[in-house]
Amino acid sequence: MAQIKLEFPDGSLREFDKQVTPLAVAGSLSNSLKKAAVAAKINGVLVDILRPINQDAKIEIIKNQDAAALEVVRNTAIFLLGVAVKQKYPAIHFGEKQANDDGFYLDTDKPESQISVDELPELQKDIAALIKANQPIERKMVAKADLQQEFQNDPYKLALVNAYDSVQIPVYQMGDYVDFGEPALLPKASDLKHYQLLSVAGAYWQGKSSNPMLQRIYGTAFANEADLQADLKRREEIKERDHRTLGRDLDLFFVDPKVGAGLAYWMPKGATIRRTLERYIIDKEVAAGYQHVYTPVLMNVNAYKTSGHWDHYRDDMFPPMDMGEGELLELRPMNCPSHIQIYKHHIRSYRELPIRIAELGMMHRYEKSGALSGLQRVREMTLNDGHTFVALDQIQDEFKKVLQLMLDVYHDFNITNYSFRLSYRDPANTEKYFDDDQMWDQSQGMLKAAMDELGLDYYEAEGEAAFYGPKLDVQTKTALGNEETLSTIQLDFMQPERFQLTYVGEDGKEHRPVMIHRGIVSTMERFIAYLIEMYKGAFPTWLAPIQVNLIPVKNEVHYEYTKKLQDDMRKQGLRVEIDDRDDKMSYKIRESQTQKIPYTVVIGDQEINNASVSVRRYGESDSTEEDISMFIDSVVADVKNYSRSGK
Amino acid sequence: MAQIKLEFPDGSLREFDKQVTPLAVAGSLSNSLKKAAVAAKINGVLVDILRPINQDAKIEIIKNQDAAALEVVRNTAIFLLGVAVKQKYPAIHFGEKQANDDGFYLDTDKPESQISVDELPELQKDIAALIKANQPIERKMVAKADLQQEFQNDPYKLALVNAYDSVQIPVYQMGDYVDFGEPALLPKASDLKHYQLLSVAGAYWQGKSSNPMLQRIYGTAFANEADLQADLKRREEIKERDHRTLGRDLDLFFVDPKVGAGLAYWMPKGATIRRTLERYIIDKEVAAGYQHVYTPVLMNVNAYKTSGHWDHYRDDMFPPMDMGEGELLELRPMNCPSHIQIYKHHIRSYRELPIRIAELGMMHRYEKSGALSGLQRVREMTLNDGHTFVALDQIQDEFKKVLQLMLDVYHDFNITNYSFRLSYRDPANTEKYFDDDQMWDQSQGMLKAAMDELGLDYYEAEGEAAFYGPKLDVQTKTALGNEETLSTIQLDFMQPERFQLTYVGEDGKEHRPVMIHRGIVSTMERFIAYLIEMYKGAFPTWLAPIQVNLIPVKNEVHYEYTKKLQDDMRKQGLRVEIDDRDDKMSYKIRESQTQKIPYTVVIGDQEINNASVSVRRYGESDSTEEDISMFIDSVVADVKNYSRSGK
Repeated sequence: MAQIKLEFPDGSLREFDKQVTPLAVAGSLSNSLKKAAVAAKINGVLVDILRPINQDAKIEIIKNQDAAALEVVRNTAIFLLGVAVKQKYPAIHFGEKQANDDGFYLDTDKPESQISVDELPELQKDIAALIKANQPIERKMVAKADLQQEFQNDPYKLALVNAYDSVQIPVYQMGDYVDFGEPALLPKASDLKHYQLLSVAGAYWQGKSSNPMLQRIYGTAFANEADLQADLKRREEIKERDHRTLGRDLDLFFVDPKVGAGLAYWMPKGATIRRTLERYIIDKEVAAGYQHVYTPVLMNVNAYKTSGHWDHYRDDMFPPMDMGEGELLELRPMNCPSHIQIYKHHIRSYRELPIRIAELGMMHRYEKSGALSGLQRVREMTLNDGHTFVALDQIQDEFKKVLQLMLDVYHDFNITNYSFRLSYRDPANTEKYFDDDQMWDQSQGMLKAAMDELGLDYYEAEGEAAFYGPKLDVQTKTALGNEETLSTIQLDFMQPERFQLTYVGEDGKEHRPVMIHRGIVSTMERFIAYLIEMYKGAFPTWLAPIQVNLIPVKNEVHYEYTKKLQDDMRKQGLRVEIDDRDDKMSYKIRESQTQKIPYTVVIGDQEINNASVSVRRYGESDSTEEDISMFIDSVVADVKNYSRSGK
Repeated sequence: MAQIKLEFPDGSLREFDKQVTPLAVAGSLSNSLKKAAVAAKINGVLVDILRPINQDAKIEIIKNQDAAALEVVRNTAIFLLGVAVKQKYPAIHFGEKQANDDGFYLDTDKPESQISVDELPELQKDIAALIKANQPIERKMVAKADLQQEFQNDPYKLALVNAYDSVQIPVYQMGDYVDFGEPALLPKASDLKHYQLLSVAGAYWQGKSSNPMLQRIYGTAFANEADLQADLKRREEIKERDHRTLGRDLDLFFVDPKVGAGLAYWMPKGATIRRTLERYIIDKEVAAGYQHVYTPVLMNVNAYKTSGHWDHYRDDMFPPMDMGEGELLELRPMNCPSHIQIYKHHIRSYRELPIRIAELGMMHRYEKSGALSGLQRVREMTLNDGHTFVALDQIQDEFKKVLQLMLDVYHDFNITNYSFRLSYRDPANTEKYFDDDQMWDQSQGMLKAAMDELGLDYYEAEGEAAFYGPKLDVQTKTALGNEETLSTIQLDFMQPERFQLTYVGEDGKEHRPVMIHRGIVSTMERFIAYLIEMYKGAFPTWLAPIQVNLIPVKNEVHYEYTKKLQDDMRKQGLRVEIDDRDDKMSYKIRESQTQKIPYTVVIGDQEINNASVSVRRYGESDSTEEDISMFIDSVVADVKNYSRSGK
């Protein structure tokens, strides 16, 4: 038989018979390696441990504890999941599959009704039985034409076969179940030990919304139990914090692609949080000297031509609307040109500066549908936006004022996990930036000086500035570990130039102001998504949609008194509900905790006689009896102090 | 000469020579009639007093005090204005002209710069000089072809000539000035005695925005001085109340067609009023059991196909936007389908009803550009919208609750000038309406019963219901005399049907709810336009953008104390400004009154020593010295009571 040469990771070369399998190669090296081998990399490509090698190549044996083994483990799980599903539902079809860093999935299409999440435990058991039976997984190469013939009545498989370039396709088979593709599988079913099916979700065939909706089964698998358990715990944690899950469980918002992808509907409770946030930030800004305005969400495209958005940002904008009479309107992607209109509406004097225009400005951005996610990535959003128009020598002072406002706001929300990044222009490529050296040097110096004056730590990033000016970003990590910009302060030399903004200086002449774009709490959507995850849905009292949940012990006896208490508390501006459903007290209290209501209060004979309330704070397991007026005062103080149930 | 027969208003017939003029006819009747005659109606058509009559006809002599004389008087004013303008600017061109119930106008196009409003007094004098000179106004019929020749270099006049059907066109001439057209003029220039030029405004030639912009000169004229003076007074009154004028003078809002026709920019002061109104109505509604939500301004057109808006309301909707992947989005023209999404998001039980969903819902309607006016008619608006979902037997009670909320709100705004209109279906044409006789009879009866229970007067309008249900409209007159719907409550049997809304009844079965559409303060735009006019811009303290204006007698001495006072008052939630400009005290006080600020407060030595303030309430001519804390209490009480500067 012909010989081939294989080169090992240490550089050594050895000769083998052509058609040798990686398993045989491993066995030729050592018995323990043969036992641990689960796959190989041939010239860097992961292949099956039983795939014949036909030519000289570099080889690396993958052992079960190697990182690369994860893919093999997960592909095996997909395969066995397919076998189990097919056993249970012979008429089922399969779509795409994938093993990835996060686990694996397999798309299924069951006639009549799709596989539900409730069936996963049973499928998990079916897989266990397959592993125990340890039937061989046959591997072979089959001609593409034969596969086309075999799957002629299965449109998904046929499409997948057709997508192959090669004439021969690797096929895996267990009993009646046939699958094909490049993935390497573990040598035998019993090598899969640590796996878990997780969830199901609809997924369009080939990701196109015009195609049929299949059911995607998600799962994960690892080479050892400790890794699996750690991963499951991490998933539990993420699930607990995921604003989409919490948004649904706490009935805060929903998005329905049928009525509009990336367009959020705020249910009453979510709307209450948002309204509270909106009033809070407006009041805060007005007190800080901002003039809040309302400007239209639509604007003539000409304004975006002037601003430059039309040329540089059009892909992220909605399609324009032809209004007739030569008017093309655009849903605004930013609020700056709108605030510039406000500035330009009057002749401005140096005496008025800084002029601080702010708005909860609704904007629309055309995010790709695949990028949309809950409230975090949406197409319609309302930004806590503000633009300050200053003279050049006011930059430092104004920057400090914005920073102070920002820190103040973070404090109220108890946000502590953030860092500052000062972005300068690249000193080696100044021609890429707005052309005014003195302005750059002076303003960058001012930003730095302001940070130092406030004693704030920051990271300086040369070359990270926008081309129109330097900026400060406040970076944070979401509860799910994604880096996110919480707030931003950007200097802008360009828009004042493009829109020919002026103010009359003390010298009676026209001068060009500098514009400062700033967002403190970003968009209502993104910030509330952030807060949901940060608070795990347990909002501090001032933000909680329901602050106090009153439960009369017996509706027929205690409701009236409870109702009076509710009225009294509402007069103090508190959001108080009564749970007078015909359910058990213990159920109502549990439900109140599930809904993460800061205060659950029980009213019965004892409480009425003692002018007291029986209070259970969110997250505590016991109730305490408290004087009724002291209790109300403490809730009011909570709201005033932005604190959470007396803490 | 041939004879013709003329029939007089009393039925009598008389013969005259052919070509007799109405003036000669009048003279033949009496000398006083000849003196008073200014024109005639020949077969009902108003003609010149010197127009020859060529055939049998009915004739009516128009005397200078007759109502029909107004048109003649105003056409004469237009003619003399033309003469005066042409004398002054020989190169000027003229566009269209019109005498109407409101006065008259003449469009002019002066090379280089248009006639400005400042030139009107001079033109008024020029007209007086023409009247004094009393040059004859020549009248003749001229062949259309000759006029086409004469005006071949004047595109406007040529177009006007070309528009005539007749071969002969009546022409009027004074000196070099030639005009033509049907209007009857007074016999001689000196007959025009009571006229006034009023204003100028840009007007597109033939009303098309693609045509050149001419300058329209407005004026009015009457047959006697008393009528003229009364009209000028009325105009002054309108101008004082016109929300567009006040909106500009008080810096509340602006609309700039260059960035978007019908799209309002709310300046900080207008925005403050709006924000106060928004918070007021939300809090009121939440207290009344409404659940406020936020829903997207965009929706898939499919929803409007289901709702029927797409078929029946499309002309008033903005063009849809193609988002790719088969998604067509539409800026919503109404909020009902959005609130239906909120309703449908959960399975609803009879125990939850009535479910009251409310929102300050931004909507877009494609109003014709000519119909747009200030804040009153806009293309982007935010409606105080609410939809209540009720069981059929809850209609009466819910209707009463909405009415009570409405009356409560009117009371707070001190709105007293309104009337109720109950609209039923037409009993003779029931097939035009949603098909459920029992539902109609029952619900109409409930609305009526609710009105009666509340002891409210109303007008019943059969056939005025929407086709989907009966309704109540609250009609008011704006300060400018236009009828307007302030609030509305509409029952809707249809949308619940179209969107298949259900709730689970006590019987465990699915039932169809009835939907009640209701708006209390209509849109933010329209309501604030209404309030501006009703209050003449002098908002009650709680709504006033600046509630208290503090003026230190000497900045260098009294500013610091004043600043402390401002801080104290701001802590009480009041909107307080300091006028520390380097202007005279008297100027600042006058300015404060012009800005209609409820309280103007002067702080000097005396006030500091006495712990007092010197207060001038809006509209009063004197200041009073008041104890400082009593003053603050009174302003706070004002806000709480929705009252105006202590009244």
